[in-house]
Amino acid sequence: MEKLRVSLAQINPTVGDLAGNTKKIIEYIQKGREQGTDIVAFPEMAVTGYPPEDLLLKPGFIKDNLEALRAIQKETRGITAVVGFVDGEKEIYNAAAVLHDGAVSAVYRKMYLPNYSVFDEERYFKKGREPLIISLNGMDIGITICEDIWYPEGPVMIEAMAGAEVIININASPFYYRKWKLREEMVASRAADNSAAIAYVNAVGGQDELVFDGHSMVFDRQGNIMARGRSFEEELITVDISLPTKRLMSHVSRLTTIKRVTLPKINSRPGYLTLSAHGEVVPPSLIEEVYKALVLGTRDYMAKNGFKNAIIALSGGIDSALVAAIAVEAIGKENVTTAFLPSYYTSRESREDAERVAGNLGIKLLTIHIQDTFESYLNDLKEVFSGVNPDTTEENLQARTRGNIIMALSNKFGWLVLTTGNKSEMSVGYATLYGDMAGGFAVIKDVPKTMVYELCRYINSIKEREIIPETVLTKAPTAELKPNQTDQDTLPPYDVLDSILKGYIEENKGIEELASLGFQVETVRKVIRMVDSSEYKRRQAAPGIKITPRALGKDWRMPITNRYVSY
Amino acid sequence: MEKLRVSLAQINPTVGDLAGNTKKIIEYIQKGREQGTDIVAFPEMAVTGYPPEDLLLKPGFIKDNLEALRAIQKETRGITAVVGFVDGEKEIYNAAAVLHDGAVSAVYRKMYLPNYSVFDEERYFKKGREPLIISLNGMDIGITICEDIWYPEGPVMIEAMAGAEVIININASPFYYRKWKLREEMVASRAADNSAAIAYVNAVGGQDELVFDGHSMVFDRQGNIMARGRSFEEELITVDISLPTKRLMSHVSRLTTIKRVTLPKINSRPGYLTLSAHGEVVPPSLIEEVYKALVLGTRDYMAKNGFKNAIIALSGGIDSALVAAIAVEAIGKENVTTAFLPSYYTSRESREDAERVAGNLGIKLLTIHIQDTFESYLNDLKEVFSGVNPDTTEENLQARTRGNIIMALSNKFGWLVLTTGNKSEMSVGYATLYGDMAGGFAVIKDVPKTMVYELCRYINSIKEREIIPETVLTKAPTAELKPNQTDQDTLPPYDVLDSILKGYIEENKGIEELASLGFQVETVRKVIRMVDSSEYKRRQAAPGIKITPRALGKDWRMPITNRYVSY
Repeated sequence: MEKLRVSLAQINPTVGDLAGNTKKIIEYIQKGREQGTDIVAFPEMAVTGYPPEDLLLKPGFIKDNLEALRAIQKETRGITAVVGFVDGEKEIYNAAAVLHDGAVSAVYRKMYLPNYSVFDEERYFKKGREPLIISLNGMDIGITICEDIWYPEGPVMIEAMAGAEVIININASPFYYRKWKLREEMVASRAADNSAAIAYVNAVGGQDELVFDGHSMVFDRQGNIMARGRSFEEELITVDISLPTKRLMSHVSRLTTIKRVTLPKINSRPGYLTLSAHGEVVPPSLIEEVYKALVLGTRDYMAKNGFKNAIIALSGGIDSALVAAIAVEAIGKENVTTAFLPSYYTSRESREDAERVAGNLGIKLLTIHIQDTFESYLNDLKEVFSGVNPDTTEENLQARTRGNIIMALSNKFGWLVLTTGNKSEMSVGYATLYGDMAGGFAVIKDVPKTMVYELCRYINSIKEREIIPETVLTKAPTAELKPNQTDQDTLPPYDVLDSILKGYIEENKGIEELASLGFQVETVRKVIRMVDSSEYKRRQAAPGIKITPRALGKDWRMPITNRYVSY
Repeated sequence: MEKLRVSLAQINPTVGDLAGNTKKIIEYIQKGREQGTDIVAFPEMAVTGYPPEDLLLKPGFIKDNLEALRAIQKETRGITAVVGFVDGEKEIYNAAAVLHDGAVSAVYRKMYLPNYSVFDEERYFKKGREPLIISLNGMDIGITICEDIWYPEGPVMIEAMAGAEVIININASPFYYRKWKLREEMVASRAADNSAAIAYVNAVGGQDELVFDGHSMVFDRQGNIMARGRSFEEELITVDISLPTKRLMSHVSRLTTIKRVTLPKINSRPGYLTLSAHGEVVPPSLIEEVYKALVLGTRDYMAKNGFKNAIIALSGGIDSALVAAIAVEAIGKENVTTAFLPSYYTSRESREDAERVAGNLGIKLLTIHIQDTFESYLNDLKEVFSGVNPDTTEENLQARTRGNIIMALSNKFGWLVLTTGNKSEMSVGYATLYGDMAGGFAVIKDVPKTMVYELCRYINSIKEREIIPETVLTKAPTAELKPNQTDQDTLPPYDVLDSILKGYIEENKGIEELASLGFQVETVRKVIRMVDSSEYKRRQAAPGIKITPRALGKDWRMPITNRYVSY
């Protein structure tokens, strides 16, 4: 009965921070060493952070990443580490270095490159062609990267057929809700199908619109889960994998070359220490994981971009209340300022609700009236607008006056503006460009309105007190840009809207298919028309956190100029 | 001595406008018929327009495009047409249909898919695997699509080796300055190397940030140019290609399958009519082609998005003057309104220059003072700003007051706002988000400041009178957001800045490489730092027309969260 002690270093790298990532990787190698581990695995492209996008086109960036790898290599005396980096020079590869006792013993290059959804790997990388097996203390370990494991006949199968007893798969797999389930099911069957244990390590952290959720996993060769990393937190997960007997080596198709590297024996190895139990990690519920993704995404966007404080315009409505609650969780209440910016149309209830939200969260609330400035604009425009009726122009002008005030506060005090538009609004263009859309980060941009309510109730439940006031949860949503306005003057009820949007955006359904699901054709047509015609607004929107299978970001690349009538 | 009459239909499709594109294609088939042509070739994806981006993920869109192709097919009685469309169902291909006498006789699928620069074809398409030769009246014609022809050992070579005497290559090749030269040199050598005539047809027209410049070409089998299409205009270019003797068929590698289709003889063919000479097309100079690209890009963005009128804020400076001149050329002076929006810091000279520009162009100039509203903002913010010194906040607030007024005019009257920032400013972030950046289309976003001057002098020269006043051409550039401000308080001289930016943006050069070109290290470092730290602004900028090898659009995919220090 042989044993392999594997540590999964579920870390949070920062894109481009080669020095910082290097330091963190070396720290985790040391942690692994302290646990007497045989091999410590880091996420995909841990050296550079993921995705570095067009930084990969800079020869200097590739060179600096190779230098960082050399610095890490030196710190692997007495241990083995698998570290994601960028290999190559003119032609580059998404690669994993096997660092062993101070040397680079082998390099694996990713064979399957995702180029769909948010991924553009074919833009940068060449495909690797060679599966890799390393032999460590007589045990055969196959190395793979992320996408590789999703293909049943990919390198996992080839390496297992060629004798690998354990497969290490390093990932930077971005979050959307319930994706961990897909991953667990897939990895379990990959392990069982190939009779190989699988150690799957994922990154954590926010990077622009993406959040990496961790949730690293180890499966035994029967496909049973042995350990699960926490979601949305850094940690080192160490597991002993038992390898009962040397398995028979199968014949592998002659068309595939496999690289085999036997790692030299490490003389200084201390022997296995007793491992404290990792403790069972219960996967989060859907709403819990969305909440944690939003908190981590906001925290990391701010920290990694050098922002300590945030400013949020509180309207008294539910969206801004939710964003404020997330911000407080992400960066602490002392770092969140809110502003209430009433106009003539703002109700007493809105003021009271905004005050209640700020009070419940214990955050500062500035009040700045926009009426005078709004009227000054109307006066400026009086002559040129004479004889023309009021319309959405005046509504937008109020929203944009607020936008300017919020931006002035941001510029003056260095506070990041968190915008408060939800996915339902962003989809149909129910938002004012340069108005409520003005800001640096759109926290709930991918959260449908119906889920906004769920999140608020969830927050109240975990905090065990009223954070989002009941009045906010129960009143009719309104933009308050003209008298007696409610969202439902313009939009279908949010449960209907969100169902149509899910079908249209996430599932590429057309009007007939949507109508056949039971929605009125006229409603479907109207919603689609609104989505299609507001592409120009989304193009100028702040980035926000992806939580659904398809967000309105890198995975939504629609032309603005587009005469296709799908309604 | 055989002869093939080929017509290149250099048309301007609109993305998503399946009905409109179909109608246009049928019209050009008829034009070809009237010229007695054998075969008329249309651009890549002429049916859908290029690039349709994520419309390609909609099954309904693919289906509708196939239906459009069927409608076109019916209109090919007595003629042959090569039409770009999307083939397939679940797996789709960038394809060319050979429509012959009312039937689909063959389909070629693009073998090389570009996935760099502005291209994302691997996101959507599978690769074709089969070169195609069609035999028309005993002549062998090879079919290829765009990228295919850039590879010396690609399908052009294979088809020629297998006996093709003429290669038809259909394109949607986007413009940047001098790209036509690269294309001509490449196609000439491809023709000569393979002893095959090449008929290269390109699209024309604007699509969001891209402009297709036409400039279709026919080369004889010695690599001599036989005909050249005009740049930036639709036209049908008809050429008789002589094919002296039946060439010997070479052996083609057994690894490659070639599809061969013999087209049935058309009985109703009228025989060749005498062709009127096409006339020599002289390729444009660099500055001429940039000007035409900007005019067409602006015209098409407006027309294809349903805008008749534009509004431009004239500052009295050179950038807004240039944009106004381009707009007048694009949509006519009766459709262009300008606004002069003075503040306390606006000089008398600026007013006079703005008036002179509007006067020279014969366009309306509204004047709206921003001082009152600006002061109203300061009053709103007095309390919260008390004890803090004025800084760029107040400068931005002025720019944003202007932005709101321009947007109000846009909203009220349905005028598209054309923004006026140039590439030098957009690169270093010398622009105010939601201020001067507010608008729908950024005409000169990819034009470096030094080229802005060249374009203005060019316009004055072709109009043979002063359009851009000499005072505008000679005064020091200023944002006029504080007393005695000039751009060079903050930025290096524009000739230095533009050279550094070219090296950094277009050539991915790092600081050492740039310094070795003779620029001061400190200047290089400062410029790079400004570029890197203003990514968040560019992410929210309006799209604009690509004219350089690398614009700040789809071919510039930089992370916002990015700690890589390349300075």
